[in-house]
Order: sequence, then C-alpha cells, then structure tokens
Amino acid sequence: MERGCGACVVLIAKYNPTKDEVSEFSASSCLTLVYNINFYSIITTEGLGNTQDGLHAIQKRMSGFHASQCGFCTPGMCMSIFTSLANADKSKEPEPLNGFSKLTVSEAERAFSGNLCRCTGYRPIVDACKSFASDVDLEDLGLNIFWKKGDKHADVSKLPTYTLGGGVCTFPDFLKSEIKSSLDHLNVSNVTVSGEGWYHPKSIDQYYDLLNSGIFGDCCVKVVVGNTGAGVYKDRDLYNKYIDIGGIPELSVILRKDSGIEIGAATPISRTIEILEQESGSISVPNGSLVFRKLAKHMSKVATPFVRNTASLGGNIILAQKYPFASDIATILLGAASTVHLQVASQTLEVTLEEFLEQPPLDPSTLLLSIFIPHWTPDSQTQTNVVFETYRAAPRPLGNAVSYINSAFLGLVSLNEPSGDPVLSNLHLAFGAYGTEHAIRATKVEEHLTGKLLTPSVVLEAVHLLRETIVPMEGTSHPEYRVSVAVGFLFSFLSSISEDIKGPGKTLNISSASSVDTDDLCNPTLSSRREALSGDDYKPVGEPIKKYGVELQASGEAVYVDDIPAPKNCLYGEFIYSTKPLAYVKSIKFKPSLASEKILTVISAKDIPSGGQNIGSSYVFGDELLFGAPIAECAGQALGVVIAETQRYADLARKQVIVEYDTKDLKPPILTVEQAVQNNSYFNVPPEMIPKQVGDFSKGMAEADHKILSTEVKVASQYYFYMETQTALAIPDEDNTMVVYSASQYPELAQSVIAKCLGIPLNNVRVITRRVGGGFGGKATKSFNVATAAALCAYKLRRPVRMYLNRSTDMVMVGGRHPVKAYYSAGFKSDGKITALHLEVLINAGISPDASPVIQKVLYQV
Amino acid sequence: MERGCGACVVLIAKYNPTKDEVSEFSASSCLTLVYNINFYSIITTEGLGNTQDGLHAIQKRMSGFHASQCGFCTPGMCMSIFTSLANADKSKEPEPLNGFSKLTVSEAERAFSGNLCRCTGYRPIVDACKSFASDVDLEDLGLNIFWKKGDKHADVSKLPTYTLGGGVCTFPDFLKSEIKSSLDHLNVSNVTVSGEGWYHPKSIDQYYDLLNSGIFGDCCVKVVVGNTGAGVYKDRDLYNKYIDIGGIPELSVILRKDSGIEIGAATPISRTIEILEQESGSISVPNGSLVFRKLAKHMSKVATPFVRNTASLGGNIILAQKYPFASDIATILLGAASTVHLQVASQTLEVTLEEFLEQPPLDPSTLLLSIFIPHWTPDSQTQTNVVFETYRAAPRPLGNAVSYINSAFLGLVSLNEPSGDPVLSNLHLAFGAYGTEHAIRATKVEEHLTGKLLTPSVVLEAVHLLRETIVPMEGTSHPEYRVSVAVGFLFSFLSSISEDIKGPGKTLNISSASSVDTDDLCNPTLSSRREALSGDDYKPVGEPIKKYGVELQASGEAVYVDDIPAPKNCLYGEFIYSTKPLAYVKSIKFKPSLASEKILTVISAKDIPSGGQNIGSSYVFGDELLFGAPIAECAGQALGVVIAETQRYADLARKQVIVEYDTKDLKPPILTVEQAVQNNSYFNVPPEMIPKQVGDFSKGMAEADHKILSTEVKVASQYYFYMETQTALAIPDEDNTMVVYSASQYPELAQSVIAKCLGIPLNNVRVITRRVGGGFGGKATKSFNVATAAALCAYKLRRPVRMYLNRSTDMVMVGGRHPVKAYYSAGFKSDGKITALHLEVLINAGISPDASPVIQKVLYQV
Repeated sequence: MERGCGACVVLIAKYNPTKDEVSEFSASSCLTLVYNINFYSIITTEGLGNTQDGLHAIQKRMSGFHASQCGFCTPGMCMSIFTSLANADKSKEPEPLNGFSKLTVSEAERAFSGNLCRCTGYRPIVDACKSFASDVDLEDLGLNIFWKKGDKHADVSKLPTYTLGGGVCTFPDFLKSEIKSSLDHLNVSNVTVSGEGWYHPKSIDQYYDLLNSGIFGDCCVKVVVGNTGAGVYKDRDLYNKYIDIGGIPELSVILRKDSGIEIGAATPISRTIEILEQESGSISVPNGSLVFRKLAKHMSKVATPFVRNTASLGGNIILAQKYPFASDIATILLGAASTVHLQVASQTLEVTLEEFLEQPPLDPSTLLLSIFIPHWTPDSQTQTNVVFETYRAAPRPLGNAVSYINSAFLGLVSLNEPSGDPVLSNLHLAFGAYGTEHAIRATKVEEHLTGKLLTPSVVLEAVHLLRETIVPMEGTSHPEYRVSVAVGFLFSFLSSISEDIKGPGKTLNISSASSVDTDDLCNPTLSSRREALSGDDYKPVGEPIKKYGVELQASGEAVYVDDIPAPKNCLYGEFIYSTKPLAYVKSIKFKPSLASEKILTVISAKDIPSGGQNIGSSYVFGDELLFGAPIAECAGQALGVVIAETQRYADLARKQVIVEYDTKDLKPPILTVEQAVQNNSYFNVPPEMIPKQVGDFSKGMAEADHKILSTEVKVASQYYFYMETQTALAIPDEDNTMVVYSASQYPELAQSVIAKCLGIPLNNVRVITRRVGGGFGGKATKSFNVATAAALCAYKLRRPVRMYLNRSTDMVMVGGRHPVKAYYSAGFKSDGKITALHLEVLINAGISPDASPVIQKVLYQV
Repeated sequence: MERGCGACVVLIAKYNPTKDEVSEFSASSCLTLVYNINFYSIITTEGLGNTQDGLHAIQKRMSGFHASQCGFCTPGMCMSIFTSLANADKSKEPEPLNGFSKLTVSEAERAFSGNLCRCTGYRPIVDACKSFASDVDLEDLGLNIFWKKGDKHADVSKLPTYTLGGGVCTFPDFLKSEIKSSLDHLNVSNVTVSGEGWYHPKSIDQYYDLLNSGIFGDCCVKVVVGNTGAGVYKDRDLYNKYIDIGGIPELSVILRKDSGIEIGAATPISRTIEILEQESGSISVPNGSLVFRKLAKHMSKVATPFVRNTASLGGNIILAQKYPFASDIATILLGAASTVHLQVASQTLEVTLEEFLEQPPLDPSTLLLSIFIPHWTPDSQTQTNVVFETYRAAPRPLGNAVSYINSAFLGLVSLNEPSGDPVLSNLHLAFGAYGTEHAIRATKVEEHLTGKLLTPSVVLEAVHLLRETIVPMEGTSHPEYRVSVAVGFLFSFLSSISEDIKGPGKTLNISSASSVDTDDLCNPTLSSRREALSGDDYKPVGEPIKKYGVELQASGEAVYVDDIPAPKNCLYGEFIYSTKPLAYVKSIKFKPSLASEKILTVISAKDIPSGGQNIGSSYVFGDELLFGAPIAECAGQALGVVIAETQRYADLARKQVIVEYDTKDLKPPILTVEQAVQNNSYFNVPPEMIPKQVGDFSKGMAEADHKILSTEVKVASQYYFYMETQTALAIPDEDNTMVVYSASQYPELAQSVIAKCLGIPLNNVRVITRRVGGGFGGKATKSFNVATAAALCAYKLRRPVRMYLNRSTDMVMVGGRHPVKAYYSAGFKSDGKITALHLEVLINAGISPDASPVIQKVLYQV
C-alpha cells in the first residue's frame, strides 16, 4: 500500500478569486508534486493545533477516545476528519446543536475512509469522529475519558469544544491578496516555467510547441495532472522535466449535450462523481439517470477520497491504456459505451473507448482531451428499457482495493412479441482487471445474447463463450476464482432482467426498473459493535485515562525516527538486495540513468572495518549476515547500500542496479519447509526453548470421546505491515562512537550487533528509540540490519547516514511472520474439552520467505 | 584578546607553479577571509591525524606529555608546532638523528609563541614541542607517559614516530594541476570578481577604475590585504563589497637602492622581517646594518607569528594613520626616518612618514604604495657614527602585547672638537602608543639636543621638553607610568652613547658600536624550570597515565558546544546589554545598517511565557534576572537578544543597537564596596556559610611577638578568561521539552533555572555538557544566563537557537571574579607562625562589576 496508506493526508485549500471562495479537499502529500499546487494553501495537523498553543478538538478527542496506539497514522486521520468536518459544515444543512458539526454519523463512518490503521482497529477512531456528528447519540460512543460508560452522563459540554466550520483558517489572507494581485499575470497565456524544469502550457498549441521545441531532447520528461499514477506505477528513474497539462482549458471542459456528457480528461475523479450525480439528478426521464448514477456510485469505490481528489479521470484511463492497470473506471466507462476525444498533433479524433484501449501504448504526442458518456434512456413508446449494472470483486467492499475483476453491463431490454419474455439488444458487456492487458468487451457473448430469449441453454452457452473470453494472463493470481466471478457477474445481471418484468401481463417496469441498487454497500447501515466493559471495582485499574503521547501523535509533534531533522551533511542509503535465492554475486553495476548519476558510493561487505564482522542481526538461533558476500544466501538478502544525497535519489538509483549472479557449484536452494526437512536443515533450538511433555498423552487419548489421530496444518507467511517502514539514522560522534536512532523493538540488541559489525566496544554505540510507527514483531531482530547498515555507512563515510526503506524494499527484505507447518494428534471429550494433544511444528525461520521462500534451517519442536 | 588567542591557527600552504615550490605559514583562521586565499591549501589539525586513521606524532606527544587540560587551545598549538617543524625541516641544516626534526630547542620554545593556554601553564606543551628538537636532551623533559622520570630510559624510539618534514602532504596534487592549468587565466590582467561581492584588481589603474565605476555607490566597501586589522578594530557593520588589493604588483615591490630599501605596502610583516634581516646581512659597511637589524628584531615582537604571516606592513601603518592605533611599526619606522610613496588618483607622491601620519584619516582614494627606509652608515672619514635604538614597554617581553609606549631613536654621533665629547646631529626621536593620535617625533627635544654636549643640565632640559611633548590623551590608562617610561627610554639612549666612546684618546668605535644588543629577549636563553617529582611507592597512584581525551582534543575531534553541527533551521542570538548601571530602559532601537537588516526579531522579557519567570541565574545568594526589565540593574545586564540567521549577523546587528535610558526617580547606583556598606546593601549569607570562630583571638594576640592591629587589603576583579566564551545551543523537542547544550560548570543548576524561566517541569529540560573550553569558575552560575536566554529564544521561536558570545560581550556581561576588600588584625610569633587572625571580608558579588561596577549587595563575613 505504498502511497496509499493516508498517513500523510493533508488538507489542500484552493482559492477562487472571482467567486472569492475557498474550496478544501484532502490529498496524499506523498503523491502531490509541489509545482502542481502553486498558490494553494496546505494545512497539516500541526496547523490545527499543538501542545504549546492549544490542541484542536479533533486532536483532543482522538486522545480522549483512545484512538491511537503507535500514532503513525494519526495525523492523516486528523486531517481526513478535519476535511470532512469543514466540508460538511459548509453545506446548506440546518445548523446543528451547539458544539456539533453538520456531519452525520453515517458520514462520520466514511470520513477517514482510506486512512489505514494497524493498531487500534478503527473503532475508537470512528468514535472520536462520530462525537462531532449532529445526529450522534453520545451514549453510544465507546470508552473515553470524558464520561464513564453507562453513567448516562454523556454530554457535549464534556467534550473538547468544537466550533462549527472547524475553527481554523485554511486560506491565509496574504495569499488571497497575492492571488488577486497576480490575476493579470496568471492570465497571460504563455507557458509558465517554474523551478526544477517544470512547464505549464496554457493551451494545446503550447503543449505541442513545447514538445516540438527540442528542449526535451534526451530528457526524462513526465506529463502530469495529479501524479497519483505514481502510487501504482512507481517512478523508475528521476525526471528532469515535467509538463503540467492541468492548466490546458480543453482538458477541463464539462459539456452537457442532449446525447450525453463530455468530461475533460483532467477533471478529478471526485469532481467527476459530483458531475455525474448532479447530471443524474437533473434528468427527468424515468430511469434515464441509471447509467450516470451507477457510474458515480462505482467511482466512489475507486482508490480513496484523498486520491480521487487529485487523480484525474483521464489519467486513470491513460494508465489503463498504457499498462495492464486494473482500472475500474475504464471497465465501467467501456460498459457505458463511452467514447474519447483525442488530439494527435493538429488533429482532433473521436474514437470509442474500446478502440482507444486497443491502440499501442500512448506517447506524449497524443493527448486525451475528454471522455464522452452517452445518455441511455428507456423508450416507453417502444417498450424498451435500459439496463446497466457495474460490479467489482475486491478485498474490501467500500473501495481502496484493487479489483480481482470488475465489469459493467449495458443493454436495451424489450419484450419478445409472442412470448412476452425479455430480449436484449445493444449489449455492452465489459470486463477488466482480471489479468488482462486492458478492459475488454465480451463481443462474442454480446452477439450470442442479442435478440435471444434467455433460456437455460442460451445462458449456458453465454457462460461457455465468456469462459473462452476471460482468460487471465500468465502469472495472474487466483485465475479460476476470477473467471468464476466473471460468470457470476453475468449470471447476476441476466437474472435481474426478468425481475424487471411485471407479470402476469408482462410489461416492462420502465419507471423503476433497476433503480433500486441490488448492493448498497456504498451507503451502508452503520457498523455494528460490541464492547466488553469492566466495572471500576478496582479503581484506578480499569479507569479510562489518557494514554501518554496521543495528543503529540495527533498534533504531529511526536518525533519518529524519520522526523528527526536531517543533521548537517546527512547522506541517505537504500539497500541493494539479492533477487536470487542462493547464488554467488559476481558484480554489481548500474544502468546509465539520471538516478545512477546521483550515486555517491556503494557500501558493501568490503567496507566492514578490520576487527568488525559481517553481521546484520542476531538472536537465540544465531547470527545473520549483514551482506550476502560472496554468496547471496536468499532472495531479499542485502548485498550493499547505495549512498546518495537524498532518500529519493538513493531509492531510484537502487532501481538501476544490475547484479550478476552465478549459481555454479551451488546446490539448489531450500525453498519450502518440506525441502528443509528433506535436507535435514534445522536450526539448533536452545534447550530452554524445547517444549517439555505435560501430562500423559496415551492416557488422554484413551479418555477421549473423539480423536484426531493425525492431521496437518499449514499457515502462510504474513507481512508485519507496520505503517512506518524500517528506518534508522546513524550519526558518527567523536572517539569512534556512533549514535543510532533506530525504529526498533529491541534497541539493546541492536547496540550489540552494531558494535560487533563495526568492531568497536559496546559503550561506543548508543541506540536511541523514542517510538516506533508500528512493529508487530517486524521491528524486533529485523530492525537490526537497517540500523547496522546505516551505522556501517556512517562509520565508513564519517557523515550521518539515514535509511528509510521504501515499502517495496521493506516487504522484500524483511519478509513476514514465519510460515508454519504443523502436525498434530488430539483427543477431545464430547463437550469439546481437550484431553490429549501432540503437536509437531515446523517453522520457516529463514530470511525473507516472502521474497523468494528459501528456508535455511527449520525449527523443529515436539 | 579576541582574534588573538591562536586557538584557530591553521597552516596555509601556497604553491608557486613557476618554481614548483610550496611555502607554508601559520595563520589565524578567524582573521583570514576565504576569498583572500583562493588557490591556497589549508591544513587543520584534523588533517594531521585522527583517532580513526591514526594520530600524528604531535597529537600523540601532546597527549603523552600531558600538554592539554580543557583542550580548547590544543588544535591551534598543534598547528603552530606543525608549521614550525615543517619549516625547520625545509632548512639547509644538516640531517638530524632519526626520529627528530631540524628544529632546535631554542626554536621549540618559540614555536607556538602567541598561542594562549589558560590551563597547563605552557610547560608540558613546551616539553611536547621540544621532544622533536634535534638538540634536545630527552632526559630534561617533564613527566610523560613514555618513560619514567629519572629512569635514564629516555629514548627517541619510545616516542611516537616523527618523520622528517612532518609526514603530511600540505598541498594536494589536484590543486597544483588546477593552478598550473589556470595560469594563463590567472595572468589575464582583468579585475577578478569572485563570489559575495569581492573584487581583485590587478593594477593601480584597475583599482581606481573600480572605485570610480560607481558600483560601490552606497555600499559598505572594505579594502583588504590580510584583514588582521579586524582583530584590533572589529567590524562594526557588514560589508557587501570587498576590494582585495593584495594582487596589485606595485604594492608588493621590493626595491634595493643605494640610499635604502623600498618595501611594498602589501608585504607581510613576517616577510618584511626576512627582507630586513637579509639586507642587514648583505651590508658590509661596519655598523651599516644597524637600523635594519634593529627594525627586524623589534618587528618580531609585533603581534604573533600567525598574525605577522598575513598582516601587511602597509596595513599596520594605515591603521596607525587612521586610528589612534598603538603601532610599534609606525614608531620605529618614524624613528628610522622612513618615507612613504602614495598614489592619490593619478599622482604618485613621496612624503615623510611623519607628514603621512599627520594627514587627515585616509580614504580609499589614496593608496599607500610602499615604505622607503633609508640606509644610515657611519662615516669613518668624518668620524661620524650612527646610533639607533628601539624600545617598547609591554606586558609581555616577547611580543603579542600592545605597548604602553614605544620609541625609536636615530642620530649621528660625532666628537666635539675641543672636548672629544659626543655630539648628536640628525636626530629622529619617535614616540608612540602612549595615548596619542599617532606616533610623533619629539622635535623640540631633537632641536634642543642637536649639537649640544650631553651635560646633566642639557639632559635635564631634554627631559623637561619630553614631558611637555609626551602628553597621553584623556582616558589613557596609567598616564604617569607611560611618561616616565618615555623619559627612561631617552635617558637610556643618551647614556649608551657615551659607552661608544673609547677613552682615553676619545674616538668613536664605529665598527662595533651599538652592534651588541642591550636587550636580547628576542633570543632568550632557555627558560628555567623546576619540577616536583613524587616516587612511585604507591603505584599506580602517581604513575603518569594518559588523560582521557587529550588525543581527541589535539586532533580536533573533541566536540565543544559550538562544534555541534548547527541543527536544521538554527537561529543565532546575541545579547543586548545595558551600558548604564541603574536605569529604566525606555526603548530599544537599531541604527539603519546592513547588519540591522539581518535582524529577524528581538527576544526580551515580554517573551517569557506566562507561568515562567524572569530568571537568568540562581545560587545560594538568590536569583538573578535574565533581563533587566523595566530597570537595568547594572551595566552589562541583558536587556534582550537579537536573533539572526548567523552568529555574525547577530553580533554585528547588536552593535547597531540604540537603547534609550531614563534614570528619573532612581537613586544613584552603588558602584563600590564602600558605597554598598554605606547603603547597608548586603547579601543574605546562608547560615552554613557564616564562618565560626576558631580558638581564642585575644589569647592568640596576647601570645604574639608581632602584631598587626588593623589593616586593609583590596583585590581587584579579574576576568576568568576561559578560551571558549560562554555558549549554548537550545533545541526544542516535542511536548514542550527543551534540550540545551551548555558550556557549564553546573549543568544541574542550569536545568532548574531554564525550567523556572520557561515555566515547565524540570523533567522537560535536558542540559547536556560534554566539556567546557575552560571555566575557572566563570562557567558556574554565569553560564546559566546564556543557556536560559538560548532556551527562551528557542521556546518562543520553536527553532533551535545558538548563542556564542563574542569576547567583548562576554567580558562585559560575565564580569570577573569578585573584587574583595578585607580588613584584618593578626598576631605572629617571631618565626612567622600565626597566633591570631581576625578577618572581615567584603566581596563585591554584583553582576558584571568590570563593565561598570555596581554592587547590589555585599557579602559580609566575620
């Protein structure tokens, strides 16, 4: 979920000098490019309040409702909540009771949708947010420090005061004046050139003039609107030029026509949803709003609110065109029979979305101008109704998850003259995201179904044809599941059609058909909850008290390792890791690229000082190497550290690495628990960790009513998924000493590993951990490698070195909780009581099993 | 001694590409402007060695000879010693024994002349330096860790190895190549313009073209050669333009003529000394070298070696022309009847030095080109001899101290025909530095003495006339002393003349007269020493062991407070202090100036948070205010802190302050111990500090053979003179916490004062003191004000704030050890044993008694 967690959400406020209006929306700061937001105002949680000037009600209530543990996600939560409150309070709804917002409880449940939290389980956060809602019943909220549960003392006056509107100025007056006074200047229709190679063309002509000017000769140029695509397709190299096409008026056009609506490609998805909702609200023809309404509803499940606010409609479709991107939007617009307007040099073209998606990947010489979505209206004269439905199967029903498969089906239904049974025509059956180059129409199925009665054999044939059409690409996960869901979607669509037919006279219910959603997850009923309450008999035990530091976390004051300001001359490192499970590393080179030019040096095993050891981690099962040298022992093992002047340079430079491997004379790697057993490859289990027999197994089995004589359980590995990835900052100090700030669950062990690696006394190493942004076991021994690598680099280079693993490196190198295979026999009484248990557990305790599962040794327990 | 302590001495190496020669000299880095040393190489003590790569022999021997305590001066010591070794080893002297340098013991004693140390007393440093000398007797050196004293085991092989030449490359090859390849470019005779407004004219014409070009319109422009004048006349404001005239060839001319020698004004003083020595060595006429030799010898007492290496001869004379600068050089050149060449626009003039000094203060339109020193040779035909002598009276005989008075006397001596007694003619009697606008000739005395026999009445009249001439300006310290020394100098000169006359035939001893120096302090015999040795009966007590950290201090790795790299967004503060002893502060304003433009804000008492207190220091006698508000209680009390982006900006901005005072309705301040007693103004002495009577005073007095019935002792205040001035770095951290790095002798008390001032709990304040660069009591309670002020500024501004007092502010604000007045009665036995003592001590315990001695309260002890 890199670039999708919401921890960095901020409020962006935009000022319209003509209307003298400020509009506010949330956005991920990690995806927002600073030259894209010139003249905007940014509010972070630090801008809401702080411990010195006073905290904001949101921050205080996050604390009072115990809504934070590690606190890493809390600033983003606060900003999503604040944006929701600020926007709700701007609505024309009636004034709420004093102390409340206009936000509703139902909106409160979705106020921070997309903000991930790994510790609290969301419930307390929802409580904090609901406490602002005008329709909340305060008694229903969970444990908090403001009143005792069940004491009927819940009262808004006990809550930290909230002022309608949020009470924070989101757009400073000086910036308004600056905008007003520079209005003339801004309207001058020249390409604006801002710092760092940014170009802002103001017209299509200017765009092409720019492209043809030759200034982008050998440059890496990036054409951007919202830049949220970088959340999916991460930058592979640095860019030295950017063209911001968001300022070209043709790309922001909204044209309402009789035949449909044309939406400029640069329109944000959230704005598109609003437009579609407004449009469907304005259509008086019964059922005429169906397509727009369903599209809007589906789009509100795409990504997260803070991504939809900046991501453009066109950008999504372009990603779908260029990459095998699992776009919902391309599929549903394809299902809605949309067309696109393109600019190719001086020509304007209109092609169907289908044709567009099938073209070779777009290059900057073609501009996607707009998307046209046709109106589909029932015709009561011809008794023809419109049917339209969209579907998505994804890990989370409310969105913010890539679909396993999505689809959208459009058709006209009329009644077959003699039988009165429904017949379909004008079918658009679109499928996407199932492991395809791009969304497709199931044309054979469309043709097959057109004009036919939906008899069981017709439907069965349709399913056969669909199975031939929906063929996931090689390497797609769960291919069978995806195909079967596709069939299910089609079946569901076809079966719903007959529901629209009024018996016994058999007419089409045109006014209401398909207007009721079969699935209303987007406006869900409030989530249920259950809370276990303890009495206060043993007061103060059990009494709700504020957790130390939540306010600091909520106000953004809490300093995590990467929040420590970079010391003077700080350098940044990123790991090079092995992509082979067991291989000699012959050479490490870099592709020529902008990013490679930023490499200052590469630190590897050769840089370990004499007297030091190649050690990166240590625990009761032994030591782990810091660097795989000369043999990379497993995929994900560090081979070196790329050093550059910024973390971004280091990260992108690492992507240019070319490692040459050689597996000559090496045995095949051990990749599974079974292979480990077969190769007799076990860890030495320290005696104190070998379980001792308790009771008499045979006796227990004899007493059992039911017996499991032998069975096998397998548990897959699981990524720890702390919000803050592994990070460390090493600062060399006088007399060969080293201060290492480490996000570690075991700073005391980190110290000894670092000292061993550098070959210096323990007292020369100081490891400081103030807090971690989530650990869940993943920042125990796994944090040592990062801290030790940073310390080694700092020691060698005599400058501070910071390492902050990107999510992808983190997942590959850190791996997950160990996959387990267990065998057991057990006996039970009829009431379920266990009388006997014999358990054998095999744990894959190797490094990085997720990256490429190599077990080095296996822990064997009886 | 700001800019005169030598702690920042570095080696500057200069490369001559034509001769392929590197020359090395020491210089104060605090006085050296970086644009003045383009293409030079700098070696600091870090460049000699360090704990990670290995230490240099100098650093190891500094440690082994216990040659460091606080360590603040040690890097400068090392660099002065290294420069001396490197230059000695380049000489044509025979190769020394393996492991030794060509330096002699006598040179070793002067190797770091001018480097001040406040802790060790120099002896161990001299030992460390002497250990390199080719003619040293190692047994004579003091206690060290290499061998036991008196064990006759002293052996060079036991010392850390020294390689002849120093073993450090002082000029890197890449820079040599760069210089060679840019030779053509450098020779292009255009004005070079380097960064930050620096202009480097290459000819006199270019200089005037620059001046007349108008580019210096309203600018603050500084004309520089060595910039060492800034050590005496500190910059009062920022400059935005500099003209470096060191590159104008006419200013570096050396012209040897029959009539004398012309020396370019930009010639460094050290080079001038060399030239004069060479010149005097090349003169074959007996006694013809007298003037040059005496001038060279006198100049080697001016300032310090590391200042003489960059300070120009002309710069010194220009200071003497423009300011009442206590120049020795101007006086002795005046005495030597020198003339100067001036460029005034397109005209070249030659005027006597006397005329030059009397002109109105020079402005940049006049250039001092060169100084001409005439030859003075005896004439054996006419039996006329030359007499010349220079004198200085100063706190230190070897130099590096401003003279109370200096003088130089030149004359021709011939024998009066009838009597054969000496008669003087052509007299030049120059006096300076006694509190005069500039050096003068005592013309009345000269006229009076010319042609007269030196009878007692003639000499007495000369003394009378001299007393009328030498009249120190109002405000000069010790005026009577200075005048009496002037008389002494003249008397000494006159009396020496008769010594040159050979009786009984009375002829002038022309060949040797005045060739023997009356005062040879410049080539002193080795300093004597006495060492108390303890046996090693109680080993390991008394065994010499390395002090922890000396190597770190010597290698420059030791981190003092101001060595901590500036944190991100660090701001800098400098105190505004009161110049009145007791007055209301009505307003604080700033003169318009370049420096004033750099002021970001001024922090004062109004910025103390509610809940905090105006407290800057605290001890058993009570609290001291941080800021004098609304009343400045004493001169030197802080009124506020000027905040700027650099320490230099803050320091110079502070100099622009205009404080308006008002003493209406205030009593006169208490300025002396006596006034305090009169006003009954006492501290409350805590009971445990009140001394108790021991024994029986009356009985003791009765038993005494000798009695002092009552007497009074006064001890003046004394500045602590730590090398590192008061400094602190305050860094705000989360949750209203503050980390303060303080150079403090009482960090635990600093913590409580800071917490009280900010109104936060003690545990929110962390005071860190790793080491101090000397304290001597002055960094006890006096360090709290600085730490507290920095903390307050950082708290208010929410950014790190650093304060590093300049020496002048430090001396004014910190004051000194308390002046004491004591009365006592005592009785003694004949053998000196005390039988009775009654002591009453009055201590001026006020703030900053030196600045303007106001006693607030007085400690009274019996």
